[in-house]
Amino acid sequence: MDKVERIGVSLDKKLLAKFDDLIAKQGYQSRSEAIRDLVRQRLSSESLNNPKASAVAAVCLVYDHHATMVSQKLIDIQHSHILQAISSLHVHLDHHDCLEVIVLRGAVGQINKVAEGLLSLKGVKLGKINLVATDPNPAS
Amino acid sequence: MDKVERIGVSLDKKLLAKFDDLIAKQGYQSRSEAIRDLVRQRLSSESLNNPKASAVAAVCLVYDHHATMVSQKLIDIQHSHILQAISSLHVHLDHHDCLEVIVLRGAVGQINKVAEGLLSLKGVKLGKINLVATDPNPAS
Amino acid sequence: MDKVERIGVSLDKKLLAKFDDLIAKQGYQSRSEAIRDLVRQRLSSESLNNPKASAVAAVCLVYDHHATMVSQKLIDIQHSHILQAISSLHVHLDHHDCLEVIVLRGAVGQINKVAEGLLSLKGVKLGKINLVATDPNPAS
Amino acid sequence: MDKVERIGVSLDKKLLAKFDDLIAKQGYQSRSEAIRDLVRQRLSSESLNNPKASAVAAVCLVYDHHATMVSQKLIDIQHSHILQAISSLHVHLDHHDCLEVIVLRGAVGQINKVAEGLLSLKGVKLGKINLVATDPNPAS
Repeated sequence: MDKVERIGVSLDKKLLAKFDDLIAKQGYQSRSEAIRDLVRQRLSSESLNNPKASAVAAVCLVYDHHATMVSQKLIDIQHSHILQAISSLHVHLDHHDCLEVIVLRGAVGQINKVAEGLLSLKGVKLGKINLVATDPNPAS
Repeated sequence: MDKVERIGVSLDKKLLAKFDDLIAKQGYQSRSEAIRDLVRQRLSSESLNNPKASAVAAVCLVYDHHATMVSQKLIDIQHSHILQAISSLHVHLDHHDCLEVIVLRGAVGQINKVAEGLLSLKGVKLGKINLVATDPNPAS
Repeated sequence: MDKVERIGVSLDKKLLAKFDDLIAKQGYQSRSEAIRDLVRQRLSSESLNNPKASAVAAVCLVYDHHATMVSQKLIDIQHSHILQAISSLHVHLDHHDCLEVIVLRGAVGQINKVAEGLLSLKGVKLGKINLVATDPNPAS
Repeated sequence: MDKVERIGVSLDKKLLAKFDDLIAKQGYQSRSEAIRDLVRQRLSSESLNNPKASAVAAVCLVYDHHATMVSQKLIDIQHSHILQAISSLHVHLDHHDCLEVIVLRGAVGQINKVAEGLLSLKGVKLGKINLVATDPNPAS
């Protein structure tokens, strides 16, 4: 449990009213919570500009399950010891396609390199890399 | 197996040389494969502008595992029958934080609504919604 | 001049220290100013999801100035009365290429439609649409 | 005028039909043109990951015209000789707010630094940085 500090923020009343509407719609229970999330997102996106920053990524791949190279490549990566931790989730979309979510952990630059290799595999139809910085460890 | 058509594309030589360099670096084995991926990504991102388009999403949440609301909320969603399929993957990041990847399937608008509800939960520190369109079914 | 309200926000000390570092690097002179900007950006990006929201956009086009269709198309748009206000800025990049920044004002959906028409013009090599919401009028 | 090369691309018929629909809607007059644009955008976005790559940027700022610091800061930058070329466009939004589009030219890293300085100025309510790579000079 980290120490908490309370700061004051001045906001125009109309701006605040709109923000209150938005966060109510999103389901936030307090302004502090919503503003903390904005601050953490800002720090995370800043950190992801640094190729050496620590991050965790969910790489989403849509591929034809007849294309066996993806699973093979995944095994290759697990054995290559480049990245610290790998988990994956497999979802059946239809009788052709499946979605594979692969969690990679490591430096931003390394993750991007490995993820691009996965996205460029023959048989992978669509893909996205979703990075979240863990370096500026958004501690609470 | 769908029918394949071969089209001709005119490209400036210098532009082509740069593209060849990039896709070699990314690991593509042919230009056709790389260009097909660009076409699919373009169609997918276009489709995601439509709230009614079918999509699958990987929602990534970093949260303190002492905050039990996330798992509770996830169960609520599974029982609410709003979305067609839900899977999840849990990764231990450190003794405080964990990463949860939740796969949602449904219309873009519904997914965003549910995902925002998850991201705004107290205890969720960071999060991202990663949508992939399945509607324009990028068939091959 | 709108009325200002002062709210309290609780933040973990470590998170606050990192935020203070970032905003000092960016040149902010106060936390309130930096947090107000995060709130306005959040509201603006939310608003841009609505095709009917009012917005202003800077459409950037890189094109070969020998391709005269861009200037012609621009004149067509000005006379089509679809959008409320149009200004443009022309920058000479080299003896082939120029950058044209075209400011469009109107509903998000209309702007995107017109901007896509500009980006797809023969001769336009690169382009981007940069929308800023004016609807949730970020009043101060 | 650069030399043009014609390449063949194999695409699934259904995928091609969807792409044809999209580019017709956007206003493209040929597939080659649309695919060239996808290739250029891909190269440009890749290039922007490199802080040393040459780029041109349109920085959009919404600010209260009573806040005179923006124009002053702009003059300071013009005299600081950090960046190669600066132009700007001013649009009157309402009796409070104006939009200023400032074109910066230089290395990606330098542009981002200067642009962040502009966005963090007191009085600037909203802002966006819109970079276009000029380095991989998408020659045609």
